Amino acid sequence: MEKINRRTFNVKLTQALAGAALLSHIPLSYGLNSGRQDKKLGIALVGLGGYAGGQLAPALLKAEHCYLAGIVTGTPSKEKEWMDKYSIPKENVYNYENFDNIAKNDAIDVVYVVLPNSMHAEFCIRAAKAGKHVITEKPMAVSVAECDAIINACKENGVKLGVGYRMQTDPYTNEIKRLVAEKPMGEVQYISSDAGFVSGNNPDQWRLNKKLAGGGALMDMGVYAIQSSIYGAGANPVSISAQEFKTRPDYFKEVDESITAQMKFSNDVVGNMFTSYNANANRLFVSFRRGWAELNPCHSYGPLAGRTSKGEEIKFPFERYYQQTTQMDSFAKHVLTGSTNFAPGEMGKRDIIIVEAIYKSIEEGGKTIPLDLGDMGIVKV
Amino acid sequence: MEKINRRTFNVKLTQALAGAALLSHIPLSYGLNSGRQDKKLGIALVGLGGYAGGQLAPALLKAEHCYLAGIVTGTPSKEKEWMDKYSIPKENVYNYENFDNIAKNDAIDVVYVVLPNSMHAEFCIRAAKAGKHVITEKPMAVSVAECDAIINACKENGVKLGVGYRMQTDPYTNEIKRLVAEKPMGEVQYISSDAGFVSGNNPDQWRLNKKLAGGGALMDMGVYAIQSSIYGAGANPVSISAQEFKTRPDYFKEVDESITAQMKFSNDVVGNMFTSYNANANRLFVSFRRGWAELNPCHSYGPLAGRTSKGEEIKFPFERYYQQTTQMDSFAKHVLTGSTNFAPGEMGKRDIIIVEAIYKSIEEGGKTIPLDLGDMGIVKV
Repeated sequence: MEKINRRTFNVKLTQALAGAALLSHIPLSYGLNSGRQDKKLGIALVGLGGYAGGQLAPALLKAEHCYLAGIVTGTPSKEKEWMDKYSIPKENVYNYENFDNIAKNDAIDVVYVVLPNSMHAEFCIRAAKAGKHVITEKPMAVSVAECDAIINACKENGVKLGVGYRMQTDPYTNEIKRLVAEKPMGEVQYISSDAGFVSGNNPDQWRLNKKLAGGGALMDMGVYAIQSSIYGAGANPVSISAQEFKTRPDYFKEVDESITAQMKFSNDVVGNMFTSYNANANRLFVSFRRGWAELNPCHSYGPLAGRTSKGEEIKFPFERYYQQTTQMDSFAKHVLTGSTNFAPGEMGKRDIIIVEAIYKSIEEGGKTIPLDLGDMGIVKV
Repeated sequence: MEKINRRTFNVKLTQALAGAALLSHIPLSYGLNSGRQDKKLGIALVGLGGYAGGQLAPALLKAEHCYLAGIVTGTPSKEKEWMDKYSIPKENVYNYENFDNIAKNDAIDVVYVVLPNSMHAEFCIRAAKAGKHVITEKPMAVSVAECDAIINACKENGVKLGVGYRMQTDPYTNEIKRLVAEKPMGEVQYISSDAGFVSGNNPDQWRLNKKLAGGGALMDMGVYAIQSSIYGAGANPVSISAQEFKTRPDYFKEVDESITAQMKFSNDVVGNMFTSYNANANRLFVSFRRGWAELNPCHSYGPLAGRTSKGEEIKFPFERYYQQTTQMDSFAKHVLTGSTNFAPGEMGKRDIIIVEAIYKSIEEGGKTIPLDLGDMGIVKV
């Protein structure tokens, strides 16, 4: 918990840093952290569904640089349970109506939005306006326009923004990035990414509701496949085409069930992608000029597993590691010290640009859609 | 080598069998084999390139039911080398001009056409007219019309026809077929197949010549991916769409470099496919309702390798096995005993129907092309 009002502090500092002339004169260690590394940031989770309760809250118990300081829920019955379980004081508990009062609560440094997709933009913007740093669960939002609104709100309010891309700080993912960047097997020429699971028999879940989810498999698992395609290729796509398959129209009434997509990347890599709510697939294959590497599983909570054509296993010595702990600690360090933000808002927006291009291609019968992304969202490791 | 003239024998028998009324009255063991299992069929290889010399001829040395009896070559300098190496008598050596005289040579039972793709039809038809059973290397031919011409020529001349699909009798392939048919992990829901290699720096090879090859990666490696997609799905596709990628237009002047294709199968399986002359990929992934199986490598000369989501390795106890031996022995047994033809002409034709649909989809900007294949080419194991 912070004693000073970081909001005011950071807003002023960011405004100062916006003057480029000043930037080189302020040591980052002075401005952005100044001895703060020993402090833990207080995180408030917004939306206490399965992911918040099953993954994020337990992960925060293991974090070094942040902790579960508050909750925001629309379900009053959850308040006491969470307060007891995680020693959260009553004053750090909010509902969706009084959420904006969080601005006055110095115990909360970061707001992590874990609501259904279509609610991300509203709560990210409200959090930014409250002067809180923001993490939004993936997909960042359900449209590029909403992503822009979130990015702008964070800029205007001088707060940091991250997307809940736990894979970007996963060691297996980073080993693939290393192979791609250091080229021990040569240049990448082809990548294939699959991300899907079989949706259980629960037709009332928000993920099947177009208005709440913004889309189906693509908005959920597809975003993982887009992410791994891009770090597997080591570049952004310059064009994309896509197709939709629906075999259970009675169940997937409003949203996409399975989608295939094909990408050409700026470095001439070809990519093949599949995402589904009706098939199990959890893989990344990277074909280099002189070999290959793969992760399977690739997108789950870990530990992941991988291997290369050299017969080597990709394996990290964690008996059990928590992707979400690493992810939130990384973002907290970014806030505290100015270290790299491995999942910035621009990355989340880029992925939604790709999602929109995929839906557009499907609408247009599989037409190839050009993309002009440059290096948007590419973070050098 | 056979003492009696099988051509006359088989033509008469086939004509007799064509009368369905008779079929149930003739025990297959009487008509088609009658004690022939101990005989080896004489095979003549047509076209003595790298595949014939490096794979088929050595494989025939290990075969039980056939042997290398003759050669047909357009390169006179190869004649003596092959005659010496494989003890082939001069009278079993032909060139492309005098090839039709093979009709009078009782030592030759089967003609195996290993020429560039565009020459398959001509030599298959000439072989059939000479009364010889026919194996044609894959792709069966460069158009559906040519496939029909081959099938008709074989029917008219009462000879058996097989395609050089060595995977169809491979034990790894058959283990996948078993998992698909017996469903220990449930129904298949998704399959992904990749077949490609990086074409060496030899711009003059016939495989890059549209007239000789009929196409590029798709006609060559793509046919493997089509094959494994279908046995992986356990059904034929009912629609397909495709895209072409070219990153080395100076090298791949006339033929396709990389192609992605998407299939919906008659049993609602979704398929994703990739083939390339510019990327290494050699995989089949089959996603079942409750697990997955994969082969990698999947399309090479073997031994292949595979595993399942249960942590089981798919492995067969061959120190070194020869796919081509099994393939040619299987076809020889089919000729000798009427056993199953695991790679009949209808299968080869079906795959070229799919190849043509892929090229059509590419021409039409990725449009989905319906396919009306029924169970064409599906062989029950």
